[in-house]
Amino acid sequence: MTELNQTGRSGVDSEPDRPAQPGAFPTDEPGKSEPQPGEGSVDFPVSVVLPAGGTGERTGLQTPKQFCTFLGRPLISYTIQAFERVSWIQRVVVVVAKENMDLMADIVWRFQHRRVRVVAGGSTRHRSISSGVLALGEEEEEEEEGQGRPAGRRPEVIIVHDAVRPFVEEDFLREIAVAAKEHGAAGAVRPLVSTVIAATSEGYLDHSLERARYRASEMPQGFAYDVIRQAYQRCTDSDFEFGTECLHLALQYCGTKAKLIPGPPTLWKVTYKRDLAAAESIVKESLSRSACVVTGASAAAIELADALQKAVGPLDMELHVVPDLVGGASSRCLLEHWNFIQVSVGDPRLSEVEALLTELQAAERAPLHPPVLIWVCVRSVSDRPSAVGAAEATAVAELAASAASRWNILLYGIQLRRSQTRPPEQRRIQ
Amino acid sequence: MTELNQTGRSGVDSEPDRPAQPGAFPTDEPGKSEPQPGEGSVDFPVSVVLPAGGTGERTGLQTPKQFCTFLGRPLISYTIQAFERVSWIQRVVVVVAKENMDLMADIVWRFQHRRVRVVAGGSTRHRSISSGVLALGEEEEEEEEGQGRPAGRRPEVIIVHDAVRPFVEEDFLREIAVAAKEHGAAGAVRPLVSTVIAATSEGYLDHSLERARYRASEMPQGFAYDVIRQAYQRCTDSDFEFGTECLHLALQYCGTKAKLIPGPPTLWKVTYKRDLAAAESIVKESLSRSACVVTGASAAAIELADALQKAVGPLDMELHVVPDLVGGASSRCLLEHWNFIQVSVGDPRLSEVEALLTELQAAERAPLHPPVLIWVCVRSVSDRPSAVGAAEATAVAELAASAASRWNILLYGIQLRRSQTRPPEQRRIQ
Repeated sequence: MTELNQTGRSGVDSEPDRPAQPGAFPTDEPGKSEPQPGEGSVDFPVSVVLPAGGTGERTGLQTPKQFCTFLGRPLISYTIQAFERVSWIQRVVVVVAKENMDLMADIVWRFQHRRVRVVAGGSTRHRSISSGVLALGEEEEEEEEGQGRPAGRRPEVIIVHDAVRPFVEEDFLREIAVAAKEHGAAGAVRPLVSTVIAATSEGYLDHSLERARYRASEMPQGFAYDVIRQAYQRCTDSDFEFGTECLHLALQYCGTKAKLIPGPPTLWKVTYKRDLAAAESIVKESLSRSACVVTGASAAAIELADALQKAVGPLDMELHVVPDLVGGASSRCLLEHWNFIQVSVGDPRLSEVEALLTELQAAERAPLHPPVLIWVCVRSVSDRPSAVGAAEATAVAELAASAASRWNILLYGIQLRRSQTRPPEQRRIQ
Repeated sequence: MTELNQTGRSGVDSEPDRPAQPGAFPTDEPGKSEPQPGEGSVDFPVSVVLPAGGTGERTGLQTPKQFCTFLGRPLISYTIQAFERVSWIQRVVVVVAKENMDLMADIVWRFQHRRVRVVAGGSTRHRSISSGVLALGEEEEEEEEGQGRPAGRRPEVIIVHDAVRPFVEEDFLREIAVAAKEHGAAGAVRPLVSTVIAATSEGYLDHSLERARYRASEMPQGFAYDVIRQAYQRCTDSDFEFGTECLHLALQYCGTKAKLIPGPPTLWKVTYKRDLAAAESIVKESLSRSACVVTGASAAAIELADALQKAVGPLDMELHVVPDLVGGASSRCLLEHWNFIQVSVGDPRLSEVEALLTELQAAERAPLHPPVLIWVCVRSVSDRPSAVGAAEATAVAELAASAASRWNILLYGIQLRRSQTRPPEQRRIQ
């Protein structure tokens, strides 16, 4: 089939639906992530405008689609999370309809989004984006007036994205931001999926376009701050009302020719109800390939977690190692992950697992997709007589039965006994 | 968001992902279905060409996507089923790559497709479609030569569709067929989802197209037999190799201006792995809204089934009532349905339910999505003492436990006791 020859970038198409970094973990502090060699670093301030004023009529659902929930989290929260994973993004301005301001504030609070500002939007997409751009300008002024908001520097580049495209990744955002700084504007494009045809006014085929010359314009798009601000200052009411393409406004009102950058297929827009099922399938696949390892303070546990982390790398899995789930980035693991590994070395303490179970239960994960908790107990062969081990096994099995029936959390226990001379002998408790 | 204003047909968009007839049932005999008043009947012979030679590289799966299976059935079988539901379609020619001929023949056999002919395809989409059109011509000649194939009359209209668009419906096929007969060619179109932009050779924005003038060309398309045959006779090797648009060939080589007909969003093409999850979600929703009722020969059971059928109509559910699951259309219910209701009146016979369970198990349904069997026993209050009822309840409960663990089939029993004076009293067994 001819359409199949229209591949995007090689390498992406071999497994097109999985984000390249399935378990990419949030780094809360700007400036922490290190750009890879040759990628071009983002050493200028970048902020994001997410227009989310849509009413969702196409999904056939009562809830606007950006607020539809799957796996316990609204779609828009996945999208915000994708930006918050990127250290060099300062601020995400979410523009929603007035009637959804409270709902959005609640989502920001529940999912602990830290860099989000919610503003009331206009009646069309362009009015909403314009409101977002203005809000970023005000923020800067407020800071200049010494009101002390942690707004960061004035953005040099603004990235505009759709709330309903949750799978945007850091590498691509970097390409867009760097190109926007260099050329004034940049936008994601994809090959056309269908042939585009022109119709006569009577509804007959007039001609079909030569596919190779045209592209579908997608999101994200990036703009130099002055370009997008001027474009909205200069454009007409008709543009605000009926326009669809920001790149077009930049061209028409600022003479800026946007750089077009081929994007991955995961940029697709959740439009219909069926797309929610598709998005869920992608998130599920990603979640199954990442886990959070909780080590406590024990050096031996940290060492084991590090070894595990190295071992699973080639399997295309990612482990996030934290000492505990208290405070800041660590507590967010409760919302980000579906799989948890608690490592205990020496004296196994059931209370550690019980505490983690309580936290997981308190985080109220989606009931249809159970979180998995694996408790790994590492002990020396000489640590204790085996009768006590059997009693512990029974206690964990009881705890597991209770966690499954009360909270829909799957608990497994693995006991590793290590000696100096032999590799560890494994014993599965449940 | 502006894209949301681009709705297709009203009424379709309110619940765009659900086919209008979720549980539409196959009618095996051509000519049985009655066109609704005002719809325009198809009283001329129509056959279908399904090019299915794709390699599926975009899904990121090893199996070409038309052969990917969900809920126990390959995608292409859902598409064929959509055509076999339509009484006025004579023949479906499926064109596959040579190496997939056996696989396809096996699918036709396993899912009891009756009107399918499998032919080996060419190396491109146009070559495959052309092979399909030629096969329909040969078939006619073979019949003329008295070889006795049950080919039906020579098709006046050929519908071309993609194997990977499984949700095409009879009403829309009728529109396409009637318009193709009248205008020589007709094709489904959809509003553009993204803005289409032209790029300069250096990869910058040149201009964006005015969205309202353009459409995405989708499938199905319909052609007068002579138009598509001539178009392929006259077109060049370059057309065969690089062309994508059949409507364009009809215009260029036969001067036929195709009628463009707006289609529903369910016509979308399964392209990526995520689309398989989307398709599965649509099929699941449809399946949950239909059931097969097995009555046996009892007049009282048939009467109850008819009453049930009328009662669920307003709930947007469909029931297919059959005496048993033996032979022809009835045995296909085992493949079409996921929910079964066995109605027994008077003496409840566990053997009836056991037989149905055995048939369901033999049909090898997908293990991840359990079939549901509800056994409804209707008895008069005076039929038997209740102690015997309790013994039966135990027997059914045991059978249910065994069916669930051995075959992943969920069995429920409902006992209705009816008297002349009061409405039935319900008792749930499991």
